[in-house]
Amino acid sequence: MKINTDLIKFESGINLESGIKLESFELMVETYGELNADKTNGILVCHAFSGNHQASGSESGWWNEIIGPDKAIDTNKYFVVCSNNLGGCSGSTGPLSINPKTNKSYGKDFPNVSVLDWVNSQKKLMDYFEIKQWHMVAGGSLGGMQALQWSISFPDSIKKAGIFAAAVKSSTQNIAMNEVGREAIRKDKNYMGGEYLDNNVKPKNGLKTARMLGHITYSSESIMDQKFGRKFQDINSKVDGTVDYEVENYLQYKGEKFSDTFDANSYILMTKAMDGYDAASKTHGDLELAMSDIKAKLLVVGFDSDWLYPPKRSKEIQLAAMNVNVPCSCVILEGKQGHDSFLFASDDYVNIIKGFIESV
Amino acid sequence: MKINTDLIKFESGINLESGIKLESFELMVETYGELNADKTNGILVCHAFSGNHQASGSESGWWNEIIGPDKAIDTNKYFVVCSNNLGGCSGSTGPLSINPKTNKSYGKDFPNVSVLDWVNSQKKLMDYFEIKQWHMVAGGSLGGMQALQWSISFPDSIKKAGIFAAAVKSSTQNIAMNEVGREAIRKDKNYMGGEYLDNNVKPKNGLKTARMLGHITYSSESIMDQKFGRKFQDINSKVDGTVDYEVENYLQYKGEKFSDTFDANSYILMTKAMDGYDAASKTHGDLELAMSDIKAKLLVVGFDSDWLYPPKRSKEIQLAAMNVNVPCSCVILEGKQGHDSFLFASDDYVNIIKGFIESV
Repeated sequence: MKINTDLIKFESGINLESGIKLESFELMVETYGELNADKTNGILVCHAFSGNHQASGSESGWWNEIIGPDKAIDTNKYFVVCSNNLGGCSGSTGPLSINPKTNKSYGKDFPNVSVLDWVNSQKKLMDYFEIKQWHMVAGGSLGGMQALQWSISFPDSIKKAGIFAAAVKSSTQNIAMNEVGREAIRKDKNYMGGEYLDNNVKPKNGLKTARMLGHITYSSESIMDQKFGRKFQDINSKVDGTVDYEVENYLQYKGEKFSDTFDANSYILMTKAMDGYDAASKTHGDLELAMSDIKAKLLVVGFDSDWLYPPKRSKEIQLAAMNVNVPCSCVILEGKQGHDSFLFASDDYVNIIKGFIESV
Repeated sequence: MKINTDLIKFESGINLESGIKLESFELMVETYGELNADKTNGILVCHAFSGNHQASGSESGWWNEIIGPDKAIDTNKYFVVCSNNLGGCSGSTGPLSINPKTNKSYGKDFPNVSVLDWVNSQKKLMDYFEIKQWHMVAGGSLGGMQALQWSISFPDSIKKAGIFAAAVKSSTQNIAMNEVGREAIRKDKNYMGGEYLDNNVKPKNGLKTARMLGHITYSSESIMDQKFGRKFQDINSKVDGTVDYEVENYLQYKGEKFSDTFDANSYILMTKAMDGYDAASKTHGDLELAMSDIKAKLLVVGFDSDWLYPPKRSKEIQLAAMNVNVPCSCVILEGKQGHDSFLFASDDYVNIIKGFIESV
């Protein structure tokens, strides 16, 4: 599989939904496979909250199980594009970047970004590749929201949308959970009102707590029960003396690892974008009206074990689509990994995605 | 309603499950109504994680809607007893108390306590009142676990047990959620390894984050959706500048209030007791064996909207009881408040409790 990683600069900048303009911006982009001569085999994949441009081909690939030669998204046939979202912390312009006006990192002053902003920035990336129409835009969770928004914002530029473990908007509980994570970060003594970069510190503790909670929401009660039950952690492998149970040890370990790599201002920015998404925000809450101009075919996949964006949120998309005659298949799979199920290949999931991509 | 509040000292001390002995201890106790001449009308109510001895009769009463004259637990007929649990922070011996060996507050060195320890301490309270048999022991959540344990530990001393929104043990997810709360507290810069009292500070931020998460688990997705939806908080009533949505404002407010009053070491102690409870721990996981000597009648109530201790956890108690011929009614009510539903009177809930108390 041919892999290309590039930092691409967009000199014309971008007008953000907030009204602020970034005079220029960069996207960290990775591509898999090759663009064909008539540029019709492009597939854009959009990452979820904590993902980045590394979708496949390395240990870090968040969609390794789905993207690759002969996989559900087959890189022998398709040119797959993935970029780190604007405001992210994996190379694209975001809080860690230098603000040209101050010559210091943006930090907490990076402007708010939205799902629509991401879609608009990805449209510029599409133009860069001189692709006229994506064969598909797909993603899970926050990535699924981007796929849905692509079909709404650029109806002529997208043939198919794969919307997995997603929703037309975040629920009250989603917002509430995100706020707990943000609170943990903001109250970390090293957050310093968001100005930790200037002080050469990092709010690792807050990021860790936030991620521990995140992991609970990405899993499910029964999955955690099967995986850990009430087993005590072996005394020789405790990551911390306060740990009693295996599940505590697991969360501590995962949280710690995440806090080493993720940026706190990005965390806050990304979760605020997730909270703020509402596909019907431009149509005064009328979802059907918002979706009425969609020309893409939609594939919506939900997972029974997902309680963050449960199956009813998938069905909501399907119902609105059908009411405005947008072709939409909605499949609810069991999913052994809760919300995270969209990341992993199962026979059904792979076959459904393959069939959708090949369908006419 | 006659109300009595007393700090009662038990000079003979108590042997804790951990093997540690407290040479003496005090319980902060509140009673409602009057004990009859033959001392047969005593009802013990056990508080949940963050409750205390104030069960009724004041603004702080956690079971005001259930306990009182002519209410479900009728203080015209019954003598209702409630004590702050050992290890709590509302007057009973706990981390805030002076350790006689050091003449300083116990703080983080207060010994671990368990549901069984609470039941054993409440047995001493029963003896203090010279009550031979409780007419009923009842409680919700962690209080329900105590009611169940009473029926197991002291089969001859309890006529009826009311076990509401509870379970025979905490689930993996319950433990995981508690660990996130504890992590937030432990990493607060003012926690200081649990020695904040010696330093005249208080880990309020950590307590606040922990409580914000707690509130999400006590509510439910649909309840929060109905109550707050995605409504933006009015700009003039934001508790914090970072707040966008009403639900964030609510959690911030509730968390802040809680952090003013609760003790962090108690928080950790109480949640560890909750995590550690397993009704079958003394019978190698055999729940039926554990419950086979119960002589009390059981009333188990679960609530559909409760996802912390969902209805299936109530049915588990009933199934085990029925398999060993312990009389047990299990009722699943709708519950408009999620896990917290056990706190609030509804016609069905009140009638069911009344009927159970009066039944022969």
